[in-house]
Amino acid sequence: MKPKPFKIETYNGDSRYVKETSTGHIWHRCQHRTLYADTDRSSVVYHSNYLRYFEQGRATLMRDNLYPYYDIEKSGYVYPIIDIGIKYYRPLHYDDLMWIHTRPDKIERVKLQFKYIITHVESKDIVCIGYTQHCASNTSGIPVAIDPKTVELWKNFPINIK
Amino acid sequence: MKPKPFKIETYNGDSRYVKETSTGHIWHRCQHRTLYADTDRSSVVYHSNYLRYFEQGRATLMRDNLYPYYDIEKSGYVYPIIDIGIKYYRPLHYDDLMWIHTRPDKIERVKLQFKYIITHVESKDIVCIGYTQHCASNTSGIPVAIDPKTVELWKNFPINIK
Amino acid sequence: MKPKPFKIETYNGDSRYVKETSTGHIWHRCQHRTLYADTDRSSVVYHSNYLRYFEQGRATLMRDNLYPYYDIEKSGYVYPIIDIGIKYYRPLHYDDLMWIHTRPDKIERVKLQFKYIITHVESKDIVCIGYTQHCASNTSGIPVAIDPKTVELWKNFPINIK
Amino acid sequence: MKPKPFKIETYNGDSRYVKETSTGHIWHRCQHRTLYADTDRSSVVYHSNYLRYFEQGRATLMRDNLYPYYDIEKSGYVYPIIDIGIKYYRPLHYDDLMWIHTRPDKIERVKLQFKYIITHVESKDIVCIGYTQHCASNTSGIPVAIDPKTVELWKNFPINIK
Repeated sequence: MKPKPFKIETYNGDSRYVKETSTGHIWHRCQHRTLYADTDRSSVVYHSNYLRYFEQGRATLMRDNLYPYYDIEKSGYVYPIIDIGIKYYRPLHYDDLMWIHTRPDKIERVKLQFKYIITHVESKDIVCIGYTQHCASNTSGIPVAIDPKTVELWKNFPINIK
Repeated sequence: MKPKPFKIETYNGDSRYVKETSTGHIWHRCQHRTLYADTDRSSVVYHSNYLRYFEQGRATLMRDNLYPYYDIEKSGYVYPIIDIGIKYYRPLHYDDLMWIHTRPDKIERVKLQFKYIITHVESKDIVCIGYTQHCASNTSGIPVAIDPKTVELWKNFPINIK
Repeated sequence: MKPKPFKIETYNGDSRYVKETSTGHIWHRCQHRTLYADTDRSSVVYHSNYLRYFEQGRATLMRDNLYPYYDIEKSGYVYPIIDIGIKYYRPLHYDDLMWIHTRPDKIERVKLQFKYIITHVESKDIVCIGYTQHCASNTSGIPVAIDPKTVELWKNFPINIK
Repeated sequence: MKPKPFKIETYNGDSRYVKETSTGHIWHRCQHRTLYADTDRSSVVYHSNYLRYFEQGRATLMRDNLYPYYDIEKSGYVYPIIDIGIKYYRPLHYDDLMWIHTRPDKIERVKLQFKYIITHVESKDIVCIGYTQHCASNTSGIPVAIDPKTVELWKNFPINIK
């Protein structure tokens, strides 16, 4: 039931990215600390708040690659979420520091998937692994092909990361 | 520091309204139960969630008076919040049932205030007392006079409650 | 990509339960209305808030079956979530009324799964379908066999529903 | 209705603190960026989320002064919130960067107050001004005198800031 340890090495000397040793996958990462507001009466982070951390990871990955989600929306696209999944391995407590690792996972014509691994900074334990799948739509909500800039950016990830 | 007990009597045989004995004020009320999601690691409801309960009280009062907030927005107005205050007297725990009491408090030309008293159903204790002040705006965000239907509705409250 | 319509019929004249025509499954259900607080700038409910609605469905199912989750915790068990998944089919907007349908799905020795279908009351559209998987633990966080009362309750669902 | 501009200067060459020109007050500050999750259908941050930002400001101030709130709780005290107030001057939108300014305001025997000013990084506009008042309690919830280390820390603020 326990996932294999998430073994990583530095990548290109850029602290915002790491290379997963076993797969060679490159992950973007950013740090975040839990708030009292995130916890529930069992003293751990309430399960839905990890989706908020995923958003933060995804938004930071996009901004660090010079194409923030806000700009995608300004260009006439929206990427609503159509599918999510999370497996939880150990809880985060109040004031815990986490790494949020994010990578683009699958790109289809109208669909785009990101994968996430959250780890506990101190113990390096995997906290949870999840994904969000998005469907490209125009502002009327009609599914459309993913915008070319996004395709270009994530299809070649991590070749052209900034 | 403790507030005076919130003594109420029935009003017009309508279970959605009560009359405060000491002031004669009429309050709308609705019941709500806390979720695990609302609590924090100290086992009580996190303080910001009471603003969510206030929204529920306000929305229910407006709907019960046949002028739901959605309809106000459809008519070209928005009522963003410009001032809030809450005094907390005792906490709510997981699975606690509360009464959310709401009443329109002050109406000025462009401003509207609602007052709230949340009580613990079982003990009748006052949990918190608060207010939200709203500023009428058009959809461009420019402050404007409150719409006539809203003025009419709350100025005469509770004369014409439905 | 669209799910098959969720066709249901009444069950035992109890408005809290419905029978799914195609599978014969019995679902508990309760109504809930979205708040402004639930929406995001795309005008629809933010995706993580459906987990909150699922909690409400699950808690109401448990209370309606005379074994509220609070009592489970008092008896020395906790049921933290270890796996979730949601597929989204159409959004909910502000002030929309939904049905939250919940049923116990799978019971293993230490794991328990609930399934959820949220529908839009007015259109009867399926909004999303999801599950939460829980792992029975004692208060020290050690996985243990599910408590006998819970096993009894859900294994025979809906035979002994109250 | 508009507040006076929040004019500040650097303080001791420490980027975590600023001096308010008009009052001489020293404020701790940290940056934070809004998420999609924080916004509502009117496209701006939902009013209750500013209490979350306040928590982040307060927690960061306490950690930067080497007495994180977690340590206060470990030492047998809790500081539940008994009173809050916020005045809102302009909204924050999605992806906006803010400064959260925090300072200890009033210290009484059992009560402690923090004050907050959130500004929009780009325009320097004041977004909101608020306070939270906390009541020192032991773990049984009985009000007690504020712990000596906290008194020492905030009474002399900013003399001994770290």
